[in-house]
Amino acid sequence: MDNGHHNGASETAGKPIICKVCRSGGQPLVIEDIEVAPPKEWEVRIKILCTSLCHTDLTFWKIESGPFIAYPRIFGHEAVGIVESIGEHVKELREGDTVVPVFFANCGECRDCKSQKSNVCTKFVDKHYNAMPRDAVGRFKDMKGRPIHHFLFVSSFTEYTVVDVTHVVKIPPPMPIDKACLLSCGVSTGRSFVSNLKSIASVKALLLLLAYNNGWFNETGLGAVWKVAQVEEGSTVAVFGLGAVGLAVAQAAKLRGASKIIGVDLNPEKEDIGRKLGVTDFIDPTTLGDKKISEAIKELTDGGADYCFECIGLTSIVRDAIESSREGWGRTIILGVEGQGNPLSLNCGEMMKGRGVIGSFFGGVKAKSDIPSFAQMYMNKELCLDGFITHHVGFQDINKAFEYMLQGQSLRCIIWVDK
Amino acid sequence: MDNGHHNGASETAGKPIICKVCRSGGQPLVIEDIEVAPPKEWEVRIKILCTSLCHTDLTFWKIESGPFIAYPRIFGHEAVGIVESIGEHVKELREGDTVVPVFFANCGECRDCKSQKSNVCTKFVDKHYNAMPRDAVGRFKDMKGRPIHHFLFVSSFTEYTVVDVTHVVKIPPPMPIDKACLLSCGVSTGRSFVSNLKSIASVKALLLLLAYNNGWFNETGLGAVWKVAQVEEGSTVAVFGLGAVGLAVAQAAKLRGASKIIGVDLNPEKEDIGRKLGVTDFIDPTTLGDKKISEAIKELTDGGADYCFECIGLTSIVRDAIESSREGWGRTIILGVEGQGNPLSLNCGEMMKGRGVIGSFFGGVKAKSDIPSFAQMYMNKELCLDGFITHHVGFQDINKAFEYMLQGQSLRCIIWVDK
Repeated sequence: MDNGHHNGASETAGKPIICKVCRSGGQPLVIEDIEVAPPKEWEVRIKILCTSLCHTDLTFWKIESGPFIAYPRIFGHEAVGIVESIGEHVKELREGDTVVPVFFANCGECRDCKSQKSNVCTKFVDKHYNAMPRDAVGRFKDMKGRPIHHFLFVSSFTEYTVVDVTHVVKIPPPMPIDKACLLSCGVSTGRSFVSNLKSIASVKALLLLLAYNNGWFNETGLGAVWKVAQVEEGSTVAVFGLGAVGLAVAQAAKLRGASKIIGVDLNPEKEDIGRKLGVTDFIDPTTLGDKKISEAIKELTDGGADYCFECIGLTSIVRDAIESSREGWGRTIILGVEGQGNPLSLNCGEMMKGRGVIGSFFGGVKAKSDIPSFAQMYMNKELCLDGFITHHVGFQDINKAFEYMLQGQSLRCIIWVDK
Repeated sequence: MDNGHHNGASETAGKPIICKVCRSGGQPLVIEDIEVAPPKEWEVRIKILCTSLCHTDLTFWKIESGPFIAYPRIFGHEAVGIVESIGEHVKELREGDTVVPVFFANCGECRDCKSQKSNVCTKFVDKHYNAMPRDAVGRFKDMKGRPIHHFLFVSSFTEYTVVDVTHVVKIPPPMPIDKACLLSCGVSTGRSFVSNLKSIASVKALLLLLAYNNGWFNETGLGAVWKVAQVEEGSTVAVFGLGAVGLAVAQAAKLRGASKIIGVDLNPEKEDIGRKLGVTDFIDPTTLGDKKISEAIKELTDGGADYCFECIGLTSIVRDAIESSREGWGRTIILGVEGQGNPLSLNCGEMMKGRGVIGSFFGGVKAKSDIPSFAQMYMNKELCLDGFITHHVGFQDINKAFEYMLQGQSLRCIIWVDK
């Protein structure tokens, strides 16, 4: 196997790498040496520059059992790194590229990836969530040769990792590294429906968890507005829930030239930040008295909003959103994930006059084409990623990142692996 | 008021007309002379050539009370006629035009009519269902000067009627008159959820009834496929329920070049007629054993149909349809109207990966632009309207049309008013 020794490959290409990792489960993480195998075909070995802690890491770290739990393992799935070496057949990346590993695939070959309509890559139907997606074997071993499990196809709490090429996105070099890390995953909305989870028993539950905790706030919001709803200039938009996803929706709607962006949130403090990001009208439902949210929105929009975005994850709010959408053409995009298993109960009569409801997986974003676009937009100052990074720590202090999040102090703590 | 005496107006223009009508309620219809006032501004007086009996006429004829019940009245809302005279401000029609009156408006001026996305005209929000939509006054009087009520803005069981211009569609003259009558309304799907109704208490219930009973089978099917779903060539389509609407969906999908059109019906006799109209695969759910309908459809379509059409009106079938739609991009169009008030209960997790559900009011058809297009398609032999007319009677025999329908003998009985 060549492994890319041509064209200026690193000295380590093709050989195992001994490096430091954090391996863990339920207790403080421990840094130790492990061996990272060279990338096999269709794989990329990445030197991690920085990584960040997401609520999903925390959730899995707390969970005790289930098919997706395997220890010892290397957590982390938001990161930026440099390609150290590539496996056979990898054509789109080369040593030295700045990349972002992502936990959801984009193979470019399956029906879904080839379709402009879908972002649900179906290249690997039965994925192996604790190892590599193709051969179900890990690339990490401890110094006694015992396997260490992967996490979400990324495992970034390490100096080096191996990732399938379908999970790696090249980022244009001028992009600031820590901001790129935000594009790798995102800010959790900070809610805790999974906090009491003891196990994750199904792939669907896992996906719900990922969608929910992993925010992908910017991608989800931008994608939902631009790709799923395709909000037009002059449209009216209602955003239910001004968490990170809802705020990204507001920002995206503003960029699209929406004429009215109505933010709905129970927390009146959300009005200020909402208005900064594009919200033109704010509704605190507790101040409406007997008036329904949908009535208030219909008054503001001459009959109902063109597009409603549910960013909370409550079926009752999905119903409010549908009622608030314009008869004739109103579309409600579901971004919040209902974690309690409550069914969404709709009145078909309310739907009849041309209303529609569309579910969205990460806002319809395709990793390989959309993330570089978003990076370019950030660099063009068309997109704001500031304010989400609240802390920085060195790799040795990774447990501080857990503490900050457990104590609710951080939005995102960047962990600088090479410092 | 001029009333259009210019440009070759008929001798009767501007004057009341004494003519024969059927007025009725629950008993055999009686033909008698009444006076039809000249059209006021924005109105058209139409000489009816032929009309046909729809289940909705029958349903209202049986119903005893409610805000939409008013006797004596003139039933009938499927018809073809000739413009006898026009009121002030009517620019789009002139005396002698062949027209189809329709029970749902298309003003061309409101936000909905101006939008390509909606067919729910909102010109008159609070309509007067028993009289003219603008002034809530009738144009019919008996020979003693007492008012006779209108029906669904049309009232076609008469030699002459007055209809608001927003409810009149001009038809290209070569269109055969009885076929044009089918475009005015449509064939009932023959189901009888309203047969036990004693009253219709709300506008919503009325609209449900209209949508359900009034079939608009061809328009609904064509519109749902072409305008709402925008089915592309090569798509896979599943049709739940091969009644008149479902068969029209199949026909429209075939015209669009769908690669697979799966018909689902409990009645195995539907397979033959389905295949004649475009169905490529037939599923009788009773033959599936333990297999779910969605599993059978996923097998036939490599993962799920691109478009599912619910043409029955059962929320359980809407759920089956959603499950049968392709994750990533599948769309389910609801055409059947749920008449029992059962809520549609959905699992948000099933929706999350890009699936969508869209309600449709008469398939998104706009009367003034789409009905002439459909007529043209019929004349171009692109659209089949044959087989639906089973009987013809003269005006004096109008009660026979009721008998045929009550006895389940007829699909459509054309009543020739001028014979």
